Amino acid sequence: MDYEKLHLNNILNKMENDDYQGYMLTLFTNIEYISNYKPTSFAFCIIKENPIIYTSQMDMEIALKNSTIEIKQFDNFDNMVDDLKKEGIKNLAIEPSLTYNIYEKFRDDFNINSKDYIEKERMIKTPAEIKNITKATEIAQLSLKQLDLLNRNETEDVIAFELVKLMIENGSSGESFDTILTSGSPSSLPHATPQAKQLETPILVDWGSKYKGYCSDNTRTIVYTEKEHEIFDIVKESHDKAIKAIKPGLKCCEIDKIARDVIGEYGYEKNFIHSTGHSLGLDIHETPSFSLKDNTIIEKGMVITVEPGIYLEGEFGVRLEDTISIENKGKIIGNLSLNL
Amino acid sequence: MDYEKLHLNNILNKMENDDYQGYMLTLFTNIEYISNYKPTSFAFCIIKENPIIYTSQMDMEIALKNSTIEIKQFDNFDNMVDDLKKEGIKNLAIEPSLTYNIYEKFRDDFNINSKDYIEKERMIKTPAEIKNITKATEIAQLSLKQLDLLNRNETEDVIAFELVKLMIENGSSGESFDTILTSGSPSSLPHATPQAKQLETPILVDWGSKYKGYCSDNTRTIVYTEKEHEIFDIVKESHDKAIKAIKPGLKCCEIDKIARDVIGEYGYEKNFIHSTGHSLGLDIHETPSFSLKDNTIIEKGMVITVEPGIYLEGEFGVRLEDTISIENKGKIIGNLSLNL
Repeated sequence: MDYEKLHLNNILNKMENDDYQGYMLTLFTNIEYISNYKPTSFAFCIIKENPIIYTSQMDMEIALKNSTIEIKQFDNFDNMVDDLKKEGIKNLAIEPSLTYNIYEKFRDDFNINSKDYIEKERMIKTPAEIKNITKATEIAQLSLKQLDLLNRNETEDVIAFELVKLMIENGSSGESFDTILTSGSPSSLPHATPQAKQLETPILVDWGSKYKGYCSDNTRTIVYTEKEHEIFDIVKESHDKAIKAIKPGLKCCEIDKIARDVIGEYGYEKNFIHSTGHSLGLDIHETPSFSLKDNTIIEKGMVITVEPGIYLEGEFGVRLEDTISIENKGKIIGNLSLNL
Repeated sequence: MDYEKLHLNNILNKMENDDYQGYMLTLFTNIEYISNYKPTSFAFCIIKENPIIYTSQMDMEIALKNSTIEIKQFDNFDNMVDDLKKEGIKNLAIEPSLTYNIYEKFRDDFNINSKDYIEKERMIKTPAEIKNITKATEIAQLSLKQLDLLNRNETEDVIAFELVKLMIENGSSGESFDTILTSGSPSSLPHATPQAKQLETPILVDWGSKYKGYCSDNTRTIVYTEKEHEIFDIVKESHDKAIKAIKPGLKCCEIDKIARDVIGEYGYEKNFIHSTGHSLGLDIHETPSFSLKDNTIIEKGMVITVEPGIYLEGEFGVRLEDTISIENKGKIIGNLSLNL
């Protein structure tokens, strides 16, 4: 199936309903999603009756090879504006993350508003996308098993590096984000950086691989002391209850509440300092999120993480994360136990 | 010396001259540059009489530990707007790369314009910054020597990975961008991805390490055939002439022209498909650039790459890159020969 064309048609329909004649994308993953060409420098994709991508001279070879959309070499903004005006574009939608300096180049010639057509389209994954996320997850989980974390004597940064190496050897193109492999008190930082120090307890690893452009994301925490076990059990209860509750029709914030309430019952609400989860796909963070403020209705085809955590500053942190594919209910992708 | 304070004062002076009461930064490296705290999630830094950073709950621990600027936990945009209005901010400058969806949150309450105060400030590196870039370069170049590229039998992707591993073992925090280690015909793509294939000729490696947040950037090409040698010599001449010409007072575009003219003399102008160089620092791409359109005057303290290349589609590419510290003239950072 030609999913690029399907996505494109869905977006064109929404544009027509809202009376936009053009929709400008610059994020590399948005352009890749719609055209199969991922820019390496800069590019402007204009979705319109005859979609086009203006790209850099240095990307012309790869763009012409990969893109399902017409490619033109970017010259300057004036010529691009002229092209678009000649085609009768008056109302121009832009992606919400377009940078201000680019917006400035177009605001005098078009009626501009930001629209999340592409984010909405990317929320619902096709079977091919879910297959890639699943493969990325399987590679990441297999690699963690092979890493044999319980029997390593190197420092955190070296072990983190070995994990990435295993993911590449197992067929991924690399890590889907900077691997978090931390231990001891720095594990109370949700985004800790691996250090040049020996492992302490607990050991927290938050890692993922990329496969055909798609990301995976998991977290495991290996606990040792009685208190670490106590916190682990609460986080596990939160993780399990939230995943069990997931089903199409609920709001995303309802899942956040379920995860948060478990942690609150034990008196640790203030120590759960981030959202319960985020979508992923070509990017490691996509919408919607399992967060307090996200009222998005859960739908089949979404892929969202569940990753409650408890962070005790100066002591340690515990987080457990799985990636959930939404079918009739939530299905965990991969099969790595929470207890390593 | 307290450079964060120096940078801050320079920017505050410019703001006062232009009658801005606040200047909003969201780019992680901009915030790190001004405060010594690098966000891991999202943050809003407002430079004003009493500068402040609004950050995420999950970053509070690390922000309070590292920042030289007051930290407040981000709650919501309405409260932030109220805070800023109460302080008498009417004219709000923003960084050019602020995203449109953030701009939208502030445009109704402030007179907003984008200003490149921070990019301008970051153009001129302090001795401490140049020391970090130099250290990053030395680590990267030492690692390439240790890699012994001429005697490797693995595939491109594995060799690229080993190079990154060496850089980490040699004291860097990792690669400063995705390592380009390519060979054979894909070397005609300036941003080629290492593949799971044996090395062919020529071998092109474009790599860099990070040290204390600062980037390095070099490219070497190892040539074998007569034609590869012929192209190499032209690129080398372009590289050498451009570097020799660098001095404060010239325009950046003049250096681009010198590099480009050499390649043009041999009839390959159409095969030099990118700018001659870019600045680097906390980011791998900063301003100014040695490019056709950049009229910035070269000043002491700038650090800019020179990286001419010739790309023959379907055949191969050659690029040679060094990073130049601008003193009374251009000084190459590092000492790795162009002939490996």
